[in-house]
Parts: sequence; structure tokens; C-alpha cells
Amino acid sequence: MTVEFLPAPGTPVELIDTPAMIVDLDAAEANIRDMQQVVASGGGSMRPHTKTTKSPYWALKQIEAGAIGVCCAKVGEAEVLVEGGVNDILITSEIVSVSKINRLAALARHASIKVVVDNAENAREISEAAVSAQSEIGVLVDVNIRINRCGVEPGEPTTTLAKIVDKLPALHFAGLNGYEGHVFGFGDERIPETLEALEKLQYAVSEVNAAGLPIETVSAGGTSTHDITCKVPEVTEVQAGSYIFMDGQYVDQKLSFRPALTIMTQVISRPVPDRAILDVGLKSIANDYGPPRVLGLDGAEFTKLSEEHGTLSLTGSAQKLKHGDVVHLLPSHAGTTINIHDHYFCVRNGILEDVIEVAGRGKFR
Amino acid sequence: MTVEFLPAPGTPVELIDTPAMIVDLDAAEANIRDMQQVVASGGGSMRPHTKTTKSPYWALKQIEAGAIGVCCAKVGEAEVLVEGGVNDILITSEIVSVSKINRLAALARHASIKVVVDNAENAREISEAAVSAQSEIGVLVDVNIRINRCGVEPGEPTTTLAKIVDKLPALHFAGLNGYEGHVFGFGDERIPETLEALEKLQYAVSEVNAAGLPIETVSAGGTSTHDITCKVPEVTEVQAGSYIFMDGQYVDQKLSFRPALTIMTQVISRPVPDRAILDVGLKSIANDYGPPRVLGLDGAEFTKLSEEHGTLSLTGSAQKLKHGDVVHLLPSHAGTTINIHDHYFCVRNGILEDVIEVAGRGKFR
Repeated sequence: MTVEFLPAPGTPVELIDTPAMIVDLDAAEANIRDMQQVVASGGGSMRPHTKTTKSPYWALKQIEAGAIGVCCAKVGEAEVLVEGGVNDILITSEIVSVSKINRLAALARHASIKVVVDNAENAREISEAAVSAQSEIGVLVDVNIRINRCGVEPGEPTTTLAKIVDKLPALHFAGLNGYEGHVFGFGDERIPETLEALEKLQYAVSEVNAAGLPIETVSAGGTSTHDITCKVPEVTEVQAGSYIFMDGQYVDQKLSFRPALTIMTQVISRPVPDRAILDVGLKSIANDYGPPRVLGLDGAEFTKLSEEHGTLSLTGSAQKLKHGDVVHLLPSHAGTTINIHDHYFCVRNGILEDVIEVAGRGKFR
Repeated sequence: MTVEFLPAPGTPVELIDTPAMIVDLDAAEANIRDMQQVVASGGGSMRPHTKTTKSPYWALKQIEAGAIGVCCAKVGEAEVLVEGGVNDILITSEIVSVSKINRLAALARHASIKVVVDNAENAREISEAAVSAQSEIGVLVDVNIRINRCGVEPGEPTTTLAKIVDKLPALHFAGLNGYEGHVFGFGDERIPETLEALEKLQYAVSEVNAAGLPIETVSAGGTSTHDITCKVPEVTEVQAGSYIFMDGQYVDQKLSFRPALTIMTQVISRPVPDRAILDVGLKSIANDYGPPRVLGLDGAEFTKLSEEHGTLSLTGSAQKLKHGDVVHLLPSHAGTTINIHDHYFCVRNGILEDVIEVAGRGKFR
């Protein structure tokens, strides 16, 4: 039976079938360049987080622009990155199950793999797996810097774990990981909140150093805090990721990056003058940070996003919207929207340039 | 490089790597039998909606239990169902783009395909595509029965569109589609609200009949209303779908079906006595109807579901939870959770029986 064909490069954007995840390549590439420039001039290196993008395509563009490697969240994502040619990866989540630890150790034969730990027994298990696999794994001690999620406390708990890691065979104690992810949308509080969190990381660094352990890498930061974090002398690399595409929640923060990812949809029903129904629902655009924004159509607002339908309320000139018309949406959260799409349709000047698989989607083990 | 291996049938459930979407086969099969029995004894046929399950595996089980066919939401889902051996499908969303209409017409050469329409021009385009493809497409006029989404109004607009469809070549006017999806969690209002909505459908039926057009099929209903809708004489088939697995939102409605789908996760960090971090986040469990529920662990509650992490607050005996322990979660919304997983791990009596691909996931065009 007939199945969907993906459009060929050269196709005008308006002929791509909907719903489709469209990337404005000029905007995404400018964001990559701008972030690299800001962080480098602040004295840091870029190690962009790829949990948002889930594709070696974007990771390689970031590395080409100057990033020293990338982060990801899961072993499955790391496998996809290595398969796609990325050779320096930090996994920023604790890896715990036996099968994942074995895959991690095997993967470290093919690329420089680093992982965070916050538990001594977990570190021992990773060491044993790496010994068996005849690989070496870089380990960063994960430090809780007020996000109150994973991580050990700075000071004695961090130093103790660092010493344990340092002595374990087939592990290389590489440094510390902290993430001030609780600083988001703080407005005027953003700078003091970020610095207060990073003071904890600085304290952890000084204590580990005082114990005689050298620290190569201190990894921290995100899109919301990159400009502050990159200037902290102890921080060697910045993990920002969302800046590449931005989204509704980040646009509100008035950062200098440009929205680069939209969902293109079509009006499939136009029952009354003040209502239009789009072919987009919770299964093709995420709403965990609220409904999407309607772009370029004054008077159109999302009133409901159900599983398979998007309902727009229309006032004024938006009521000219016709059955079959295309509508462009800015998702409130790019990360969870990308996570439900299989392809990026990468467009430049209105013409499709590349169709890129979201190869890491679903690789959450 | 090493990649994830899927576990083999016979694997004990606790050895399946996390996060994993687990189906209790006994519960799902009982739900299928129970729904079939309720609807049949109410005088209706079952045409379960597969937008939740997205897999021919479940559709074929439902057909084996007595369903006359299934519904789906998208052409891509219908293609996957036909590929998997399902031969009677109603698409309950308006299909509008040229490429989707052409695929629809091509697919109708391989199976009995029906689709809803609420627009005369759309019906003409589908007719032209079916003429070209030398296929026949069944068409149900989509009637707005108070959900205020797609659909024409009952009475003259419905009858006019039915007459147009009936005259178009390569289309077969099959009847009417209505969905009282706004009736959800109404409590005591559920019965009168459902009947009030269905009165609109009954009126539409009587007007179309009065115009001399025979109606084979009147398709309506969902899990929340199946027991009421199946008894309305004009309704010939019930589209319920969520009953097969249930979820947090449906459990609250105190229907008689059993929760059959859970997400199995692992504790990856246990930093302080009252906090545990799970390897599940927004990218492996949906929160559009709220956070998941923690099963079998009194004193454990979700406090935050971030992209890659789930944070539990622990009180009392739940504080015995250890690093590495497995935790079972009931998602608030199965449909959007299944939409981010690639596999069902189907378990009976604690043993893995089948690993089933979510073959329709991402097929939203």
C-alpha cells in the first residue's frame, strides 16, 4: 500500500505535508555561532546539551562551530551520537541499571565517554563494567547546587566520592558536574540566583583541590544562565542546549537567540467564523509549558489542544483564515515537541534543504 | 558499537530495562472482552478507536473479540493498520492535504476505508482522488454534537452535505459520525449530557432519512459514554478506545475497566531520606493530565516531572525505597504516553510474553 514519501530537498516549504517540524537553518546556525561566541569570550568552552535536539546532525554543527563535545541524557542517545560520528560525550544523568552500565562501558571503546555519578556503589559497578569491557570511562561527580534533584552536596560528600572514583580501576576522575537548572525565568533574580548556585560548585571545587585531586572539567550552565556561568573562573564548560532552537518559554526570557523551530499545520475544518481546527494535537506538539503560539495571524489564539486537534479562536482579520490554509506555530517547549517528531524539515529562504531524522528520539534507555 | 537489545519473551518483568511501558495482558484482554459484551448487549457494534494504541496488534485482538473494524485519526495510522492486517477502518479526522488525500485513495484499494467530511469541497477532492486511484471510499458526514470542534450542524447543513457526498463518484455515503467527547468526568451529569448530545445526532439521522438517503452507519461514543451511547437506537457502532488500558484520568471516573498499562522506572539517585529521583521524565511519560501516580508505595508522591527526571517526595515507609529499586507508575494519560514509546512490553503473571512495536507512533500525517 502507498505510504508517506518524505519531500525532496528543493521543495518549497509550503508544499511540505503537515504537521511538520520546520527548522529555519539560518536562525539555528546563527544561534550556534552566537552562543559559541558569548561563551568563548566569557572564558568557557561549549559542550552543548543534545537532549533537546536528539540528533548527531546538530551536534556536529555545534562541534564544527567550536564546541569541545556534547552532553546527552541517556545511554541510548549517546549510542546514536557515536554512531553519527560524535566522539566526545558527557552523559549528565546517573546511569544505574546493569544493562545500561554494560552498554556504557562498551560504548567507551568507541569514543570518549564521560558520565556523572552521585553514589559510590554505582561508581564501583561502572568501574567493574569498564574493566570487563577493557574501556576507560571519565567520571564527573554530580554536585547538587540548589536544584535539589540528583547529586551529592558540595564539601565533604563530594570530596569523598571524588576520592573513591579516583581510585577505581578503569575510571578517570574528570571533575565536577553542576546544573543550576532551577534558575529559569527569574528576571532580575537571575544573576544573583545563578551566582549563589555556582558558589556551591566553586566551594566543591576548592575542597576537592584541597584534597589533592586535580580537576580538569567543571561542567555547568544552561541557556538561561550561560552568559553568567561562562564567566565563573572555575567553570570550564557550559552545557546550554535549548538556545539552538529556542521556544515559547525561552522567548519570554528575552534572550538574544532567535526562534528557529516551528510546527507547520493546516486548517482541516472551518465550521464557524470564529473557529478553525488544525491538524495538530498533543501527539504532534507538546503543551507541558502551555499552548503553542500562533505566528503571523493576529486575532488567532489557541483555545484547546486535544489529542489530535488544535482549536483556534479567531477574531478580526484572522477570520479570513480559510479551510486548507497553513498555520505556523511556535511550541512552548521545543524539547518535548521534538521528542514526538521523527524528522526535522530544515529550510533556508523558504526552500527545504535537508530532512534530518530525530535519531535519538525514543532512546531513553 | 553496542546498542540496546530488547528482552526476549520469558524474561521476568523486573529484568526489563527501564523506563519501560508494561501492559498487563490479562487486564487488557479482560477490558476488551468486557467492553465488547457491554456494547453488544446494549445493541451496538464495537469499532474501537486506535489513536490510543497505535498498533495492529491491539486492533486485531479487538476484532477477534467481536469488533467490526476500528477507527484511527490519521492516514499514516491507517496505512500501518492495513499493513498489519486490519481491513475495515474509519478515519475520524478530516483529511485535507492533497498528498494525504491521494494516499487515502490509494489505501482504499487494499481495505475498506471510510473517512469523515464536514466540507463539500473536501468531499469533491476525495472523490476525484478515488476516481483516479480506481478505489471507493466510504464517507460519513461529521456532525457537531456539542463538542464544538469539527463537524457540520445537524439538520439542513448535514443533510445538504450528505446529498452532495451521495452524488459524488467513487464515494459511498455511509452515514453519520458524531463524538460526544465533551462529556468527560461529568459525574451525575454524564447521562443527561450524553443523551442531550446524542439527540442532536438522532435529529441529524431523522433529517437525512427524511431526505430519502439511507444510513448504514452512525458512529459515536467513547470510553466515558459507551454504556449510554450503545443503547441509543440510531447509533450503530461505538468508538471507545481508552478502555483497553485505562489511565489516571479514567480511573477517577470509576468505570469498571482495569488499569492495564504502567511505566516501570528505576531509582537512579537517592540523595536524601525524603527524595528519590526516577529515570523517567516528560520524554517517557506524559503529564498533560497531571503527574503520574506511584503504585504500591504508600507515602511516595510525584513532586516534579522534568524532561529527563522524575522527583518523588517520600514520607513514612516509602523512605525505605533504595537506590536502584524499581517503581511502577500509572500515567495520567495513556494516549500521549504511548505516543512517546516505541514498544509495549506485554506481561502475563510477571513474565514477558510479547514485545510489540508502537507501529503507528509518529504517523501523524
